[in-house]
Amino acid sequence: MHRLQVLEKKRDGRELSDEEIRKFIQDYTVGLIPDYQAAALLMAIYLRGMTPAETLALTRAMLDSGERVVFEGLPYAPVDKHSTGGVGDKITLSLVPLVASFGVPVPMLSGRGLGHSGGTLDKLESIPGFRVQLTLEEYKRQVERLGAVIMGQTAELAPADRKLYALRDVTATVPSVPLITASILSKKAAGGARALVLDVKVGSGAFMQTLVEARRLARSLLEVGGELGLKVSGFITRMEEPLGRFVGHALEVREALDILHGRGPQDTTELTEMLGGEMLRLAGVAASFEEGRRKIQAAIADGRGLEKLRRIIEAQGGDARVVDEPQRLPAAVEHLELKSPAEGWIQAIDARRVGLALARLGAGRLKVEDCVDPRVGLEMRHKVGARVTPGEVLAVVHLGKWRDPSGVESLLRAAYRIGPAPPAVEPVVVERISP
Amino acid sequence: MHRLQVLEKKRDGRELSDEEIRKFIQDYTVGLIPDYQAAALLMAIYLRGMTPAETLALTRAMLDSGERVVFEGLPYAPVDKHSTGGVGDKITLSLVPLVASFGVPVPMLSGRGLGHSGGTLDKLESIPGFRVQLTLEEYKRQVERLGAVIMGQTAELAPADRKLYALRDVTATVPSVPLITASILSKKAAGGARALVLDVKVGSGAFMQTLVEARRLARSLLEVGGELGLKVSGFITRMEEPLGRFVGHALEVREALDILHGRGPQDTTELTEMLGGEMLRLAGVAASFEEGRRKIQAAIADGRGLEKLRRIIEAQGGDARVVDEPQRLPAAVEHLELKSPAEGWIQAIDARRVGLALARLGAGRLKVEDCVDPRVGLEMRHKVGARVTPGEVLAVVHLGKWRDPSGVESLLRAAYRIGPAPPAVEPVVVERISP
Repeated sequence: MHRLQVLEKKRDGRELSDEEIRKFIQDYTVGLIPDYQAAALLMAIYLRGMTPAETLALTRAMLDSGERVVFEGLPYAPVDKHSTGGVGDKITLSLVPLVASFGVPVPMLSGRGLGHSGGTLDKLESIPGFRVQLTLEEYKRQVERLGAVIMGQTAELAPADRKLYALRDVTATVPSVPLITASILSKKAAGGARALVLDVKVGSGAFMQTLVEARRLARSLLEVGGELGLKVSGFITRMEEPLGRFVGHALEVREALDILHGRGPQDTTELTEMLGGEMLRLAGVAASFEEGRRKIQAAIADGRGLEKLRRIIEAQGGDARVVDEPQRLPAAVEHLELKSPAEGWIQAIDARRVGLALARLGAGRLKVEDCVDPRVGLEMRHKVGARVTPGEVLAVVHLGKWRDPSGVESLLRAAYRIGPAPPAVEPVVVERISP
Repeated sequence: MHRLQVLEKKRDGRELSDEEIRKFIQDYTVGLIPDYQAAALLMAIYLRGMTPAETLALTRAMLDSGERVVFEGLPYAPVDKHSTGGVGDKITLSLVPLVASFGVPVPMLSGRGLGHSGGTLDKLESIPGFRVQLTLEEYKRQVERLGAVIMGQTAELAPADRKLYALRDVTATVPSVPLITASILSKKAAGGARALVLDVKVGSGAFMQTLVEARRLARSLLEVGGELGLKVSGFITRMEEPLGRFVGHALEVREALDILHGRGPQDTTELTEMLGGEMLRLAGVAASFEEGRRKIQAAIADGRGLEKLRRIIEAQGGDARVVDEPQRLPAAVEHLELKSPAEGWIQAIDARRVGLALARLGAGRLKVEDCVDPRVGLEMRHKVGARVTPGEVLAVVHLGKWRDPSGVESLLRAAYRIGPAPPAVEPVVVERISP
């Protein structure tokens, strides 16, 4: 009767108690509550929402469903970053080594891509030999010795989140503020982070399509994170056109290397500096965000970020020579030029359409069980605001061998909008998130 | 992708197409769609509702999930009755033989009780030998030969409804107008009914607790039934105090016999006459509801209903002697008197509390897998509006042997409210439902 009463309460829009939430999550994690009852609860939460107190209770219950890492002997409290996901977002790869190069521990638990959006783990796996599945013991040791790790969630950390996330994915309950909040924070807190910098994406290529929704999520993460004892801050950033110059797994690793070499595109370099600057501030290495940002710029200029990345790749079994010889990354064997059909200015490049079109070529997953081809991707020669002439190459599609590109060209073309006047070009950072 | 899109659409409050609904139900029925996705859809339907077109498509999809009975050689089109369920509702038992005694075929598919409300099949099983699980072939033959049957739904009829009903029961999605509509109508239409008289209960002891909700359900059943080619009409009736004199399985069979003998309580006799009169009108045996009601009264007076019930019991393997010798029904071995604590008028007897309290003694099911004890029940000596003195017996609890009555007495006592002035006594029928 207990679970049915929980379902009825949430269905009717009443507030669940801490105890009701805790018991439901405990019982679901160990298999006492079947998927169908959890699915009904997820849909009710999606449609009825949760109060901050309920969201906190849910986060705590998920956090307590598994182990919680406590690091020893670290110079600073561990700082993590979370992005809500988008197209061409390779910031983790440039950010982690830069922040860690200051001695700030960055224990980064990342995910895989699904649908239009990419995943950090898939990108890292395009580095030959790189292992993204370490044990919890390896994770802890690498952070304590090297100050940084980028890997997948393990079975011991927030198992309730793993189970619920998989269920949300197949029940159309992913983009829910309380569910996203509990998922992110339970996992990050279980992994031992004490501070968290957020990159909440907003726009047609993001989960949160409007600024109102993005702010609601940011506010929820800030409030619940604070109650959990985490320092949380960050930025709401734009996700309309794909970020940077490249989309695709090996291509995005190349761009991350470009950023660390000081020759990255403007938008992804700026995001790296801003998120990194804020992480240094939260860690106490910089007194202000501006000082943190200058430190990150310095670490790009003097190559400290590159050096840290070499160490991370080596520690996780990868071929660190890719850092200086990116030609060692998997590369496309065929290319397809996407040409402008008209004269004018690029008004928009729809990130969601680009992501979904590339996924059909192997640069993403349409289903969880799909394989990805690290070589496939898009090299954008021009971005929103550029002036183009008819026949000019807008972008180059990097093709793998095993999927048929027919049809994809027109899908990609449909992602571009070209008009007769220069569009207003908006900065990538929309606003700051702070308590 | 297809099912996720269906989930997203309903989640976002958009209308599903006939084809989307049909495919989802088909795939769910054969096991291609797992319970958790169906559970998420049920909760989304519960909270977002369905348009009449969607409800019709759902009903058709559920109807088409199995066989559809077509009777041969019947003098009239088959007429069925559906009650949305309550406490002490034994009307099916008196109604079916009375209507069938006019040659009107009544193919009655009934259910079991759960929670506070009782089920016709459980009541019938208190008649020694009575079989409620016949094959579909037996069902058809009995209606064609005898004109009436009362039994459980078979596996061939609306299997989607059986599967969805079981899932609704454990996902808190039972009291939803479109889901109730599709469940009732798909089952009744599959069973071969061509007309349907409704008894939509309203009040604290019913699924629909307000008149607005009851009217919405009645309207939905009328509209969708009409689109399916069924004649539908009926009544909204009150479900505040338990119906009649008895609650409990064997006790309710006794009361049904009392009604057929012409010595039943006022409310259950009136309901039998009204629902029966309307069934005769829909069948074309009576020109008006009033004429139908007079015919039912006549069939009570001349014993035709009793005679038909003997034939039905015999046909289904039961001991027909109970009709004239109700002492052959299982009877309690112990009794407990519930006495009035005060002087005054009975203001209310909470049917839901009575049902739940009796279920703890074995007169109902708290869980689907519970067994029922046919002997257990409540004999109400006084009903709402009666004047009682301190210590006067309000009701007698009929006890079985195998459950502990301690605690139940206070639960039952809490169902009674006694006050210093006579309450307004409302008629059992609230209003008529007609197209």
